[in-house]
Parts: sequence; C-alpha cells; structure tokens
Amino acid sequence: MQILSERRLDGDLLERSLLVGDVPGILWMPPLDPSGSAPLILLGHPGGLDAQHPRLIARARRSAQDGFASAALELPGSGSRPRLSALEEARAELRTALGAREPVADATVDRLVLPLVDAAVPECRAALDALSALPGLGGPVGYSGGIISLGVRLALADPRIAAAVLFAGSWIPRVILEEARAMRIPIHMLLQWDDVDNPRQAALDLFDAFGSPEKSLAANLGGHTGVPAYAGDEAARFLARHLGVASSRAA
Amino acid sequence: MQILSERRLDGDLLERSLLVGDVPGILWMPPLDPSGSAPLILLGHPGGLDAQHPRLIARARRSAQDGFASAALELPGSGSRPRLSALEEARAELRTALGAREPVADATVDRLVLPLVDAAVPECRAALDALSALPGLGGPVGYSGGIISLGVRLALADPRIAAAVLFAGSWIPRVILEEARAMRIPIHMLLQWDDVDNPRQAALDLFDAFGSPEKSLAANLGGHTGVPAYAGDEAARFLARHLGVASSRAA
Repeated sequence: MQILSERRLDGDLLERSLLVGDVPGILWMPPLDPSGSAPLILLGHPGGLDAQHPRLIARARRSAQDGFASAALELPGSGSRPRLSALEEARAELRTALGAREPVADATVDRLVLPLVDAAVPECRAALDALSALPGLGGPVGYSGGIISLGVRLALADPRIAAAVLFAGSWIPRVILEEARAMRIPIHMLLQWDDVDNPRQAALDLFDAFGSPEKSLAANLGGHTGVPAYAGDEAARFLARHLGVASSRAA
Repeated sequence: MQILSERRLDGDLLERSLLVGDVPGILWMPPLDPSGSAPLILLGHPGGLDAQHPRLIARARRSAQDGFASAALELPGSGSRPRLSALEEARAELRTALGAREPVADATVDRLVLPLVDAAVPECRAALDALSALPGLGGPVGYSGGIISLGVRLALADPRIAAAVLFAGSWIPRVILEEARAMRIPIHMLLQWDDVDNPRQAALDLFDAFGSPEKSLAANLGGHTGVPAYAGDEAARFLARHLGVASSRAA
C-alpha cells in the first residue's frame, strides 16, 4: 500500500490518499492519543471517489465523532479505474428497463451486481490487510453504506467485519438473498421507503433473510439520497454499540 | 376527574391513580421546577392496568428522563371495567382461527378492534381535557404504544396529539389503512419482525399508507414483548425531538 498524500481537514481529521495495489482509496483518521487506536469503518458507496468525496468526508467526520477511522476504496469500473464493459452493458439494460417502466430481469440484476462484488471483495480484504498494519488502526471492523451485496459478501468472507450498517439502495440479486441466511453479525439496515428506482420488497426480503440474531431495519422518507440526520445518528450509535467505542454521542 | 391516591416512586416519579368519569387511569409526573410544566405522553397498552402496571411504570420512568409526564387509561372491557360481550366473542374467534392456523377474517378483525377504538377515543379525549387542566401539565401531547388503531384514530380526532410512536403489535382493520392516509403528524412505528401472532404485512401496509411527511419504521427481532432497549431509546428520542423537550438523553 502506498500513501500518496495526506492533509488535515477541519475537525482535526487526517485524510490520506492511498493506493492498495492499483485500487485508489482514502483513509480518514480521527485525532488519537499517542498510544490510541481507532476501529475502522469501511464506507460503502456507489463508486466514483471524486464525485462522492464531499459525502464521504461528511460520513467520515460523523464516524470520527465516535472515535472511528473510516476508509473508502474505488469500486471496480468506477472513477479513475478502467471501465468494465459487462458492467456498462448491464447498466444500460437497467436504464432501458427503468425508462420503459418494464420489470428489470433477474439476469440484468445479476450482471449489474455480481461481477462487481466478485472483484471488490478481494480488493476490500487486501485493503483491510494493509490498513490494519498502520499504526493507530485496530480492533473490529464495520461496514457501512451502499452496494448492499458487497456488504453481505464481504461480511461472509471476512471475519474481521463485526457489524454492518447496510443501505438498501441498490439492486439485490436473488443469490444474495440465499447467502444472507448465513449472516450472523449484527445488522442495521437503512431503507429509504420512497427510493423509487430500487425495489422495496427486495430490501424487505433481504432483511427477513438475514440469519443474524440481532438485526434492525430503519425505514425513512426522503428519497435515495435523503437519509435523515437522525437516521444517520442512529446508525452511528449502532456501530458504536457493536464496535465497542465509548462516546458521548453514542449514549 | 378524581385523584384517588398518589405515591412517590423511586426516581422521584409521582404516581397518581385517577378516575376520569368511570374510567380508571394512572398519571406519572416527573420532578418539576415550581413553575415548570411537562408535555404529556398517553401510553397505549393492551388493557388491564393492574397486569400492565410494572411495564407501564418502566415506560413512564423512561419518558420522565426526557421530561415527559405519562398517563395510561383502562381500555373499555379490560381490567376492572365491565366486559364487552361483542369484544369477547371476537377474541374467541381470533383464538380459534389462530389455533387452527386459519386466516383471520376481516370481519373478526373489525369486531376485535373497531368497537374498542370507537369507545376509547372519546374517553382518551375526555382524559386529555381533564389532565390538561392539572398544574404541571402543558404543551403538545404524544401517543406512544400499542392498540395502533387507537393511536391512528385518536391522532386524527384530536389536534393535541402532535407526534406518535405506534407499536405494530395488534390486528389492523382495513378501514384504518384507508384512514391512515389522512395522518399528517410525525410517526415512528415500532415493528417486532417475528411477532408471529400479528401480521407483518398489515403493519408494512399501514406504514406505507400514512400520509405524514415524516415517518420512520423501526423493525427489530425479539418477539411481541421483546422490543430492544435501544429501540425504546430511539422512540424516546423521536418524542423528545417532536414534542420539544430539551434533554441530555435526547441528544
């Protein structure tokens, strides 16, 4: 892993641009005591680190309030990474189906999500290997955000993922519904009830499928990008509760 | 309204036994400054004040932490009140259908819920009239708890109800789904995902129907009576946010 640059943001957050193999990433570190260490939250996002940067900083800042470090990796086929032609084709099919108000074929959903997740899971795991060797990072890891199928498969593949906030704002292949039954970590699912381009029933089915002894579903209004601040705070409390960080904000 | 007795509980909560007309009730008041006043939360419950007393005290205590007074009224046909034969018949039909794993008829659900709600709404309103005249009670009123159809109809009937935590643990007549579209107050719905005796889909349909610009659904595991503590805290924060009580616990 290379650290390409670093800068200090308002609120004393240290932002580092990374390269893990050929995957760009960003790490945000909260202020720490010299001997301190912060659990890491891996931020799920739709891809395009540059475009997502302001939103990711806001999420990293919220996590830092609870003592967490945050990291985001560029997704395969997004941002500065080479496009994946199969993924682009599946996206075009999805747009066509949605534009025509036709049902989206299961095969389209599979090709939209599964190759992306297959490529991203080992990249996330390699990043966790590299990041966990950095001073100041330690303890369990949380997953928080979108590309819900990546959150599920990464949590099933990597025992370091101890809790997950899963944002139900992406298409969900049927095979992920089956695999979700094997989940055992605590899950907090955020569902935007009126997210018109993402099927609500699939999210409810996925929540139902999770085998985790503790799972909570928080549904709110506000559209795909309109998660209310109180719902973000609640998700932060969930992570603080399960990743063992004491915080006044997490009370 | 008669105040039949009063006693001070641990945590300095003042508990008063009431009679509003011929309806027994209990009022819990938090400690107040001499000139202070507390907004009131009307606690929904399944009926039987004596049997519910320990659980109601715990809920009143939680609300008092945020500066709220709480009140509970005996439901028509429950506790020390005369039984309602039509209601008892509907309950027997429900038990028979559930025991035989047969679908519960809409007509049974209607007779189980609607006469109860029709009788309870004016009783609740009369109690709000009487309680709001007491020193130390003032401001908007919240509804919090079960008998979700009562919460809906009371909120639609009485403009003092400014926010509602609705516990989806009771049968929901179809007419309530229609009426719910007229709701405009902020709603936080608690759904126990694996509450086997109450239909989950009806609760999701009701949540979908609410016309309120702010509504949130919190689904958790734990069975009908197993609402996790964190979900109770979240519901308390919702009420504190909307009923305008400043509280460190509500941050």
